[in-house]
Amino acid sequence: MSSLPHVVIVGAGFGGLAAARALGDAPVRVTVVDRRNHHLFQPLLYQVASAALNPSDIAVPIRAVLRPYKNVRTLLGEVRSVDVDTRTVTLDQGSLAYDHLIVATGAGHSYFGHDDWAAHAPGLKSLDDATAIRRKVLLAYEAAEREQDPAVRRALLTFVVVGAGPTGVELAGALAEIGHHAMAGEFRAFAPEDVRVLLLEGADRVLPPFEPASSAAAAQQLAKLNVEVRTGARVTHIDAEGVMLGDERIAARTVLWAAGVQGSRLGAALGGPTDRAGRVEVDAQLRLPGHPEVFVVGDLAAASSEGKAVPGVAQGAIQGGQFAAAVIQAELQGRTLAPFRYVDKGSMATIGRRAAVAEIGGRRLRGTLAWLAWMVVHIAFLIGFRNRVLVLLSWAWAWLTFRRGARLITGGFVPLPAPGDVAAPPQDGAGGNTRGPQRVEASRPAA
Amino acid sequence: MSSLPHVVIVGAGFGGLAAARALGDAPVRVTVVDRRNHHLFQPLLYQVASAALNPSDIAVPIRAVLRPYKNVRTLLGEVRSVDVDTRTVTLDQGSLAYDHLIVATGAGHSYFGHDDWAAHAPGLKSLDDATAIRRKVLLAYEAAEREQDPAVRRALLTFVVVGAGPTGVELAGALAEIGHHAMAGEFRAFAPEDVRVLLLEGADRVLPPFEPASSAAAAQQLAKLNVEVRTGARVTHIDAEGVMLGDERIAARTVLWAAGVQGSRLGAALGGPTDRAGRVEVDAQLRLPGHPEVFVVGDLAAASSEGKAVPGVAQGAIQGGQFAAAVIQAELQGRTLAPFRYVDKGSMATIGRRAAVAEIGGRRLRGTLAWLAWMVVHIAFLIGFRNRVLVLLSWAWAWLTFRRGARLITGGFVPLPAPGDVAAPPQDGAGGNTRGPQRVEASRPAA
Repeated sequence: MSSLPHVVIVGAGFGGLAAARALGDAPVRVTVVDRRNHHLFQPLLYQVASAALNPSDIAVPIRAVLRPYKNVRTLLGEVRSVDVDTRTVTLDQGSLAYDHLIVATGAGHSYFGHDDWAAHAPGLKSLDDATAIRRKVLLAYEAAEREQDPAVRRALLTFVVVGAGPTGVELAGALAEIGHHAMAGEFRAFAPEDVRVLLLEGADRVLPPFEPASSAAAAQQLAKLNVEVRTGARVTHIDAEGVMLGDERIAARTVLWAAGVQGSRLGAALGGPTDRAGRVEVDAQLRLPGHPEVFVVGDLAAASSEGKAVPGVAQGAIQGGQFAAAVIQAELQGRTLAPFRYVDKGSMATIGRRAAVAEIGGRRLRGTLAWLAWMVVHIAFLIGFRNRVLVLLSWAWAWLTFRRGARLITGGFVPLPAPGDVAAPPQDGAGGNTRGPQRVEASRPAA
Repeated sequence: MSSLPHVVIVGAGFGGLAAARALGDAPVRVTVVDRRNHHLFQPLLYQVASAALNPSDIAVPIRAVLRPYKNVRTLLGEVRSVDVDTRTVTLDQGSLAYDHLIVATGAGHSYFGHDDWAAHAPGLKSLDDATAIRRKVLLAYEAAEREQDPAVRRALLTFVVVGAGPTGVELAGALAEIGHHAMAGEFRAFAPEDVRVLLLEGADRVLPPFEPASSAAAAQQLAKLNVEVRTGARVTHIDAEGVMLGDERIAARTVLWAAGVQGSRLGAALGGPTDRAGRVEVDAQLRLPGHPEVFVVGDLAAASSEGKAVPGVAQGAIQGGQFAAAVIQAELQGRTLAPFRYVDKGSMATIGRRAAVAEIGGRRLRGTLAWLAWMVVHIAFLIGFRNRVLVLLSWAWAWLTFRRGARLITGGFVPLPAPGDVAAPPQDGAGGNTRGPQRVEASRPAA
């Protein structure tokens, strides 16, 4: 009885999961290691952050996805280091020996050397990030309802998104819809018009990876949603009170980061060359130079296809993972494969209700058509029938009612940020509001 | 222009929300204060803990529920103290003066003087409790998959529920279904039969508040699900390794508490008499003795109706909240109301698939019929059309597939509890598994 080769896959995002599924029927043993128990559909993460979807609508347990493949096991664990010479992966507990390794741990945020900004401007990569942002946004509204100082209330109702790539555009659009529609009529101390959403971008247009015409269409649609777009805006400082753009201060209690990405820590640990963003430079077979048994796929790889860089999108990761699996199987059969070739299936970004842009196969779409295309594609690629049905229903409900169904603040009670007395309660009918404790004492019967 | 009386409601559970809605059209101003932004449908909380439902399926934003009532405002805040003499409620920030006060802050857990047990045996009162329990249960399975020591693995796969009231019975049934069905086929290191669920009860039967025939029916249905029920079991110690019943140790890494309740802290702060469980003794109008302007309703009240104690269930709180609102309105009109009268609408507890018991209007149901009745009642009382649809769909999906849709471990990576090496990966096909690092090194080509 021969022992089958052991393939270790680190990370069960789009790249790792695609590789594991592709190896599901192959004559290898596969171990998938992830520090989370769920695969996350990252393109919809901003909808959890903006309270439209539930965390579990866009996530599935990794081991549930891989259950059909008897040669695959799933381990929850954190990879601490990789020794490419002894071919060993060290976990938080124990270690794994491999014959082939596929590293697909993705990317995190880069604050361009200003790591102190992270505390004030959270980014969006995990479900925990998304629920933390949801909490921050909803708490700002709650604090505004209790706040008496108009300047502080303005800062509480000002939301700044830094970075106008697809995630930034989608977040800004969603924040505007929350402020101007979803919570209308629920607050007594301010009106929907008091809510301000700013989208800051260092480049000269939103959605820089798209064609200029798509950027212009997106800017127009953002303006309709009352998002204030500032291009050529260089953020020089972020703290708890807001953002500095050179000498200009924007007072905002909620600042979200959608600007830079940085390859995950494990990339550098492999010992090979990395680019400025910490991504691992791989060969035409997506392998670590000098180590044909180690593959790097997805956002962590600085890969190229026909001389062009492969973009850090879901399709790049999925195709990379499938390719790595194919190379391993080809090798086992004594064959070699042609270099990796990325097939661009198009890009899209959604902005709001019937507002989106898409570039598919050389065609540009905008408005309702792009928005419908965006929905169809995102539903189609969601893993799990149940999730598709629930997401479709949540969207239908949100579309019909203008409401968001997942407006939960979880994580225990924390006193609101703004000190000061509670505003007086509303009077039934018009008129001034002079009710105070004195008044109450006067009307109290002698006990 | 006259200033309307100000009613402050603390807590937006079943009691507080019922009172606020009943006062929604009355000539009063109402302020609802809660430390959470959501109203929680507590009877389904165990389904979040057992990964069947999402947190937002059973919770709605309080201010969304109260939006139609223009005389009601909602504040997120924590009440620190109440001064019944000056009629002032002090919040984490600022204070509120009231003419009428309705305290409906419910109950928490009581560990019967063993507060050190709380860290090892969490209880189930909030959404954060539920997601923490879900995390604990799912992590135990993940750790068991990596564990090599059979004794430790057994302890990881042993789940103990202390207390066999409705919540304990429901939790135990759900844990058994998770272990024996929902995750079947997903683990390589153990089989569903290795999962053990124990339900411990100090009284001589499960569901002590029900009639003996219902208890017997529940015990039978629990046995069918392979839940080991121990009645007359006195827990004498709980730590990270398990539970002591006198001299007997049950090694279990997951222990859940569903035994005692304790009135919330604010009850004692009112200064009136409280019972042993910290509940406030109220008069026939649910008022604090000596303070006819202060009402206590729901689980925090030790109320009676026609000489019998009002049980700590949702119906008791709803009827109490509505009654307090009616008393306030009657007083404003110069009328007085007859004493509070609790209408028992029946009790039910569900155990598993087509397994439940119910007592409605003197009739006892069990099995499929009770289970259907339980579902209809719980769907009917859920607030919000969207929630009802999503819960129905989640149940239908779980029923058809035996799977649970909300199996997310959130809250960041924490190393698994059990140390030790990682078990070897599965072989494709039968046979021993001797693959180790040496083997890998031997098969490695010279780099």
